[in-house]
Amino acid sequence: MKVGVLGVGLIGGSIGLAARGRLQAEVAGFDPDPELLERALELEAIDRAARSLGEACAGAEIVFCAAPVAVLPELAAEAIAASAEGTAVTDVGSVKRELIAAFGSEPRFLGGHPLAGAETAGVENARADLFDGARWYLTPTPETEGLLYDRVQRAVAELGARPQAIDAETHDRLMATVSHLPHVLANVLVAQAEAAVAEESERLPEVGPSFRDATRVAGANPSIWTDIFGGNRDAVAAEIEAVAARLEQVAELLRGGDAEAIAGWHAGAAEGRRRLLEAELMGGPLQGLRVMVSNRPGVVAEIALALGRAGVNIEDMGLYPAVDMSSGAIDLYVAGADEAERAVRILRELGHDVSRVER
Amino acid sequence: MKVGVLGVGLIGGSIGLAARGRLQAEVAGFDPDPELLERALELEAIDRAARSLGEACAGAEIVFCAAPVAVLPELAAEAIAASAEGTAVTDVGSVKRELIAAFGSEPRFLGGHPLAGAETAGVENARADLFDGARWYLTPTPETEGLLYDRVQRAVAELGARPQAIDAETHDRLMATVSHLPHVLANVLVAQAEAAVAEESERLPEVGPSFRDATRVAGANPSIWTDIFGGNRDAVAAEIEAVAARLEQVAELLRGGDAEAIAGWHAGAAEGRRRLLEAELMGGPLQGLRVMVSNRPGVVAEIALALGRAGVNIEDMGLYPAVDMSSGAIDLYVAGADEAERAVRILRELGHDVSRVER
Repeated sequence: MKVGVLGVGLIGGSIGLAARGRLQAEVAGFDPDPELLERALELEAIDRAARSLGEACAGAEIVFCAAPVAVLPELAAEAIAASAEGTAVTDVGSVKRELIAAFGSEPRFLGGHPLAGAETAGVENARADLFDGARWYLTPTPETEGLLYDRVQRAVAELGARPQAIDAETHDRLMATVSHLPHVLANVLVAQAEAAVAEESERLPEVGPSFRDATRVAGANPSIWTDIFGGNRDAVAAEIEAVAARLEQVAELLRGGDAEAIAGWHAGAAEGRRRLLEAELMGGPLQGLRVMVSNRPGVVAEIALALGRAGVNIEDMGLYPAVDMSSGAIDLYVAGADEAERAVRILRELGHDVSRVER
Repeated sequence: MKVGVLGVGLIGGSIGLAARGRLQAEVAGFDPDPELLERALELEAIDRAARSLGEACAGAEIVFCAAPVAVLPELAAEAIAASAEGTAVTDVGSVKRELIAAFGSEPRFLGGHPLAGAETAGVENARADLFDGARWYLTPTPETEGLLYDRVQRAVAELGARPQAIDAETHDRLMATVSHLPHVLANVLVAQAEAAVAEESERLPEVGPSFRDATRVAGANPSIWTDIFGGNRDAVAAEIEAVAARLEQVAELLRGGDAEAIAGWHAGAAEGRRRLLEAELMGGPLQGLRVMVSNRPGVVAEIALALGRAGVNIEDMGLYPAVDMSSGAIDLYVAGADEAERAVRILRELGHDVSRVER
């Protein structure tokens, strides 16, 4: 199988590595940045560095467009023009509607979006196993040629991902809610806190873990996120307006002062989060454990090491140090009740106070 | 010195332990729950279990009201009535305005709020060092008696905390922004995601770390938070409305599609968060390191252990596992450039890819 990869960053590089290793494909890479292309070749993410986009597409059964969201429309158009009749052209952008509006009637184009790698970037971080177990959305239209769809879907599965068809509009709306919206809220929360601090002459009070967690992604990866916000602007704007309306309702609820209604709203959020997060877990519902520890260097290590020895994997973790870092709480999340029981036993043997966290 | 503690949960118990250990105080405790009071005595958080509120207040130089926010007004009134002329009465509630409206003209009452312990609860978790280095807000009024204010401030400092005077209204507004608002946004984001999933027939897409982080506190500690939302409802509602207005502006910004303006807004959030979080750090600005690791059990341990051996403490941590948990990124935050350099060296010696995270 011959594969073309246009854009050899983290995603393109990882597609190359996985396609070479798992599909025994011959991978031709192209990138407008010759240094990046050279580096991808050194890292063996591609078999050969094409001197042009057309050369990378020539004879390929699948061409992956793996460039930033903003340049994908142009890149996809060039790839379709440069490739032959039997070539499937697909992409990896996190926003799909615009692309499908432009190329949805092209039988050889198929939109795609692997949910992987968002936390890092660069061909240096490319890995053959980047897509293992990851959802890879595909957005076929009635015009998409069946044979080519089948070919891309199989290839994506062999790269390690779990392909799923979805229409572009639904995809963009869902992503707007669970991925793009949290980034907007983080940004807005920072702005609001800055305004509050500027207004008061007091210095900022110590910021607790809730503010830290809620703003962790504020302003992250500027070029990628500017593209995403721009590319999915209608769906994100609609989500933002929906959230603004919900907030107005909450303000009204609080002003009303009905303790029972406030308690009901708050408890519903805990329940809702649990349901949403459990949906994605294979190993059983997420179980939270809270461990009270002295915060000396190494204590997190001891705990993780002991759990690791017993084969208990930590799915998620939150550290809540006391202000002076002398002690604190660690929340650990493991999948399934059995894992949780084992973890509690091990942690108690280490002499730690452990309690269950209902979340 | 004689100290009365009314309510012997996490905070009251920790005040007792610290007052006994550090102020050489004789601590009388009272709690409406006799079992809890007995447990506090067993844990040596108090010297003696008073049979009534009056008995705990008798002869005390300071009485700490350490009950849930909703019962503080009643408790403070009783403590003032039951204690003698020379006794200072203070509290530890996270909301101050209502209390000050009721007792601000009482010379012997002084509102207080230690920023500690929010992540846990119960006298079992009480510790003498809970307040070490923690901000402890005090809300004096023009009526507050100077000698008593001085006494409480000294005591609080000797308990390990850093006292700071603030007016009650400013306190509640600041807390509304940096503490209460993140909880509201987490709840609303969950509700919005639930609605989006219900609307689409698709199942929930895999939820990334941004959603996890942004909703970690959704619905947390229902009874405490229902009290706080109720007790600070006007300030929180005002913050919510301000955020809703900001969100409308962001929606407009996105719909406008001006990439440069979007990029500027997004970059400003990263900058703002850095400024806000750095304000609280003693050891130097927070430095972020991203480590790419295989996600086998024990790898977090190895890393934390190696850093611990070298005396590098981890101030904050984020785990971003790949979907199948086979690998992932770990973000570590350490205080100061020196610590960061040492950490990078150690992590590279362990064979990990490390990059700096600009946040």
